[in-house]
Amino acid sequence: MGKNITQKIIASHLVSGKMKAGSEIGLRIDQTLTQDATGTMAWLQFEAIGVPRVKTELSVSYVDHNTLQQGFRNPDDHQFLRTVAAKYGAVFSPPGTGICHQLHLENFAKPGKTLIGSDSHTPTAGGVGSLSMGAGGLSVALAMAGEPYYITMPKVVKVQLEGELTGWATAKDIILHLLGLLTVKGGVGKVFEYAGPGVATLSVPERATITNMGAELGATGSLFPSDAVTKKFLAAMGRPEDYVQLKADPSAAYDEEIVIDLAKLEPLAAKPHMPDRMATIKSLAGLKVNQSAIGSCTNSSYADLKAVALMLKGKRVKPETDLFISPGSKQVLKMLADENLLQIYLDAGARILECTCGPCLGYGGSPMSAGVSARTFNRNFEGRSGTQDAQVYLVSPQTAAMAALNGAFTDPATWGEAPAKPVMPKKVPSIRHLFVFPPEDGSGVEVLRGPNIAPLSRFGRTPDVVEAGVALKVGDDITTDHILPGGTHIMSLRSNIPAISEYLFTNVDKEFVGRIKQMDGGVIVGGENYGQGSSREHAALGPRHLGVKAVIVKSLARIHRANLVNFGILPLLFVDKADYDKVAQGAQVAIPAGKIKPGKAVEAVVDGKLKVKLTNDLTAKELDIILSGGLLNAVGASR
Amino acid sequence: MGKNITQKIIASHLVSGKMKAGSEIGLRIDQTLTQDATGTMAWLQFEAIGVPRVKTELSVSYVDHNTLQQGFRNPDDHQFLRTVAAKYGAVFSPPGTGICHQLHLENFAKPGKTLIGSDSHTPTAGGVGSLSMGAGGLSVALAMAGEPYYITMPKVVKVQLEGELTGWATAKDIILHLLGLLTVKGGVGKVFEYAGPGVATLSVPERATITNMGAELGATGSLFPSDAVTKKFLAAMGRPEDYVQLKADPSAAYDEEIVIDLAKLEPLAAKPHMPDRMATIKSLAGLKVNQSAIGSCTNSSYADLKAVALMLKGKRVKPETDLFISPGSKQVLKMLADENLLQIYLDAGARILECTCGPCLGYGGSPMSAGVSARTFNRNFEGRSGTQDAQVYLVSPQTAAMAALNGAFTDPATWGEAPAKPVMPKKVPSIRHLFVFPPEDGSGVEVLRGPNIAPLSRFGRTPDVVEAGVALKVGDDITTDHILPGGTHIMSLRSNIPAISEYLFTNVDKEFVGRIKQMDGGVIVGGENYGQGSSREHAALGPRHLGVKAVIVKSLARIHRANLVNFGILPLLFVDKADYDKVAQGAQVAIPAGKIKPGKAVEAVVDGKLKVKLTNDLTAKELDIILSGGLLNAVGASR
Repeated sequence: MGKNITQKIIASHLVSGKMKAGSEIGLRIDQTLTQDATGTMAWLQFEAIGVPRVKTELSVSYVDHNTLQQGFRNPDDHQFLRTVAAKYGAVFSPPGTGICHQLHLENFAKPGKTLIGSDSHTPTAGGVGSLSMGAGGLSVALAMAGEPYYITMPKVVKVQLEGELTGWATAKDIILHLLGLLTVKGGVGKVFEYAGPGVATLSVPERATITNMGAELGATGSLFPSDAVTKKFLAAMGRPEDYVQLKADPSAAYDEEIVIDLAKLEPLAAKPHMPDRMATIKSLAGLKVNQSAIGSCTNSSYADLKAVALMLKGKRVKPETDLFISPGSKQVLKMLADENLLQIYLDAGARILECTCGPCLGYGGSPMSAGVSARTFNRNFEGRSGTQDAQVYLVSPQTAAMAALNGAFTDPATWGEAPAKPVMPKKVPSIRHLFVFPPEDGSGVEVLRGPNIAPLSRFGRTPDVVEAGVALKVGDDITTDHILPGGTHIMSLRSNIPAISEYLFTNVDKEFVGRIKQMDGGVIVGGENYGQGSSREHAALGPRHLGVKAVIVKSLARIHRANLVNFGILPLLFVDKADYDKVAQGAQVAIPAGKIKPGKAVEAVVDGKLKVKLTNDLTAKELDIILSGGLLNAVGASR
Repeated sequence: MGKNITQKIIASHLVSGKMKAGSEIGLRIDQTLTQDATGTMAWLQFEAIGVPRVKTELSVSYVDHNTLQQGFRNPDDHQFLRTVAAKYGAVFSPPGTGICHQLHLENFAKPGKTLIGSDSHTPTAGGVGSLSMGAGGLSVALAMAGEPYYITMPKVVKVQLEGELTGWATAKDIILHLLGLLTVKGGVGKVFEYAGPGVATLSVPERATITNMGAELGATGSLFPSDAVTKKFLAAMGRPEDYVQLKADPSAAYDEEIVIDLAKLEPLAAKPHMPDRMATIKSLAGLKVNQSAIGSCTNSSYADLKAVALMLKGKRVKPETDLFISPGSKQVLKMLADENLLQIYLDAGARILECTCGPCLGYGGSPMSAGVSARTFNRNFEGRSGTQDAQVYLVSPQTAAMAALNGAFTDPATWGEAPAKPVMPKKVPSIRHLFVFPPEDGSGVEVLRGPNIAPLSRFGRTPDVVEAGVALKVGDDITTDHILPGGTHIMSLRSNIPAISEYLFTNVDKEFVGRIKQMDGGVIVGGENYGQGSSREHAALGPRHLGVKAVIVKSLARIHRANLVNFGILPLLFVDKADYDKVAQGAQVAIPAGKIKPGKAVEAVVDGKLKVKLTNDLTAKELDIILSGGLLNAVGASR
């Protein structure tokens, strides 16, 4: 039988395991990326592993998240990242050069290659047919050290795109439609592979919008074929040699199939506070919009921003509605400047921010109190914008621009005829010289470590019986933003685990940190899809630092589960989900950790009497990692 | 006898008093400006005064300081400022439109007019011959309500400019030279009026660089004549009708005279941490520079930024040196875009920030730990950059650009031939439509007040005898940054006095707030030039909120002195400066406040035994204001 694209790339990178959905496979990783918020930790871990130079084909260290530099912490982190990249052979992308996923797509992503990145939106590069996955920083550090990346062989979902987008519907509305259909849990353990005649109608940046936000489905990855459109894109980017064709065999089989008729789509929005709470823009007509924000790794391409410029031309946005524009890269910004489009933004009253993640994570651009914000981003978790009671709607650039012009959402039927999609020039200006390429021999480079760079702590082995109190009990769909909030102040502590741990669960339960410190460690009880959202491994590393030994939940998000394993926290699942109700916050739990076997249940004892069955979906290797106190210990032992 | 320009403008605006240096005069104020950091308070005060509409010819409310919007506070402040301006008849300049002084110069400042602004660099508009002064927010609120502005009739210093700048010397080096000559105390009670053949060689933006940084001399204001150069500038700005000629009479007399030979100047820097610590760039050659930052109200004009672009063309700044560029206004940014100069910045690796104050106040762009920063700004107080141990050098744009290219200060003799100064086009693109002009009748406008806008507190009368402990004793040259630090976090509390007061003197003495709260109020003892620097009235309002009744110092900075008066804090001076040493922190002081007469000494009793003579330079009116508990009380009583 023929192979689909996912299977082809996996087969050519398989180091261990069988390509059977659900079983563990080890993959050779060609490329890695890190960004500053997760990267300082990943690089500290890489140093701890102790190899002299990265062993991937390419590793890039981007600085795009926390670039505001209010105080010494961020600039010190940037200097650390710059020098550590030079020492160990990675490319460094300085702050302000652009957003990692946009830059990677433009400059480095290659069809048929594997890429992991310490950012949950790494699957963006699936837009050019690179099998790209978000991972914990430690996994990325290990990949840089030449270790395989272990995942569960995903199911492959064929997303058959029929027809063509019409009117004001955009690529963003395709992925929003899919999110409404499948929910934020719908993609767990799956790769979404796009196929059908609709594929050829979508440019690479449009494809990347879709693969980017596949992360919100909880998917392992999303993939587009590498075809004539890809070839043209890579040629425009000045690297035609990176093109290889990539398509599914005609006889390829898929685990699931979804069909979307593009012609039937219309402008959509994900309503507060979850990316799957779908509504048509039409149904929102009349809702006042206080702010529009255009940009992020989802929607900051040349075509996106040019489309917005054409809509704004000769117009002024409503003075009571702020409009932010954050171009995805200096390449995009240069192209806009070359075509004199920036003047249109300025005349429209828009605010042009640096080429960074910016408002997407509340690094500036927070809405006013209870403000409605129309954002072209990928996440609208409560408080993520920096304003706890803001109402964030995820929309296309066109919808955001129209909302700014009207000061409100309006029925797309009143928007007039949709203009033609901007077409990428055949050759675009290069910004390759802005990356800092490493010297051939970096051994003499001095790594700069400001006072915010705290040394790594190492953790001990898991005891045979974990006896601990339930330090916190939470409900379903807890995101890593709930576990560790974003925002500049907290994010500036990303390279300082003791300091950042003080903010764990701040927005969920202000007493948590004080409580678990007094309890001298504990366990956390949660509901479904625990740890969804951003890949930040600090959401595992921080709890481990405060003594969390296990999380006991109904189900787990993929990347967070991997992070728990990496830092030696037992990820346990209720055998009977009804038992969730029986374990109260404050209860004492005894877990026979030493008796845990992969996939088998053990009996934990609650408050000395109640017995609760807990299982796991761990492999033998993962279990070993946890019991040895985390992956750094495990790797150290095997070297 | 003829008049100088200062005397002419004062004479035409004199409401009370005699034009005799040292005596109090009341001036009719034509224009006011506020910015967001001081403006929320000024507008709350204006509302408290209770007039239905501003009575000036023009009042503009700019948002340029705290525009990062990390959380609800800033955007809520912006909404308050937007709506309160509409209600009461002021022009609103939205965040990102530009820096207040640059925008005011380009769009509103007029020769021969009086302007006060709640920002210490308001004298920038002296570059077009407007008598412009920094003032406390309350003074601005009163001016908006039609009240005169009271100052001490300044001495007028003639600064005779001979010759012409040569080589790499710039307007910035003129004012740096003057600062080195006169120190940060050298301008107190004076207006610097520029004259001589050198004047005609300087463009209006160059003049504005000089008048802007006249604030660092402690000057009341700085003035250039309004001449052919001014006429051309106003015409280019699309407002030729605002031009009037303004020059000193040939027989005019001055209180002092300084002569500067422009041809002898060379590139200079003010060394850490005071704007008068002058050195030649040549003498600094070899010092590694980690960061250059170009912009601020001192040096962000079209000509400044074009000069930088021409230097960067085809070059890449050192990867280990960050280069920030913050254009002064969207007009400047549009002009750069029109000439395709932004691409040069991008290709050079520069980071283009919004058109705001930005890094000047540590709103982003902080240097790395102990980093050397070459900044085109006007202040280099310790910690102001956001990084406590940063080493900030104040320089010209050309020097900053060269430092970024070389990664270090280098001898200007090695820079090659200086390029010709960029010339402003005859007609520049207007951004007038970006200002929000108020409706004819704003009475129906609803003023939006987010939860960060705390209501004004009113203070009680000063008791006949102030008995209090010395809550803090500090040395010479304490700035308002020492009293209340900048930085985004603190600045976002500018409309919330109880909240912001928690940060008073944080960087001087972390115990101060706790101590004075326990003491239930107190007095502060200081040295020379207490309260220099930024005009922030929170540096008086905050202490008053915590119960400070008097400051006893060797000498006071002008604006801070006015703020102390406005909020009912006694500004007392040691008759014998040696007595400073006799009053320790923690001592108990009894001041016979009820017996204080203008300019007369009283005897305070320290620790029940030691007698210390304290005098004042207060007018009868000022004394009355203080004793009645501050200006709002005093104005209320007289209405």
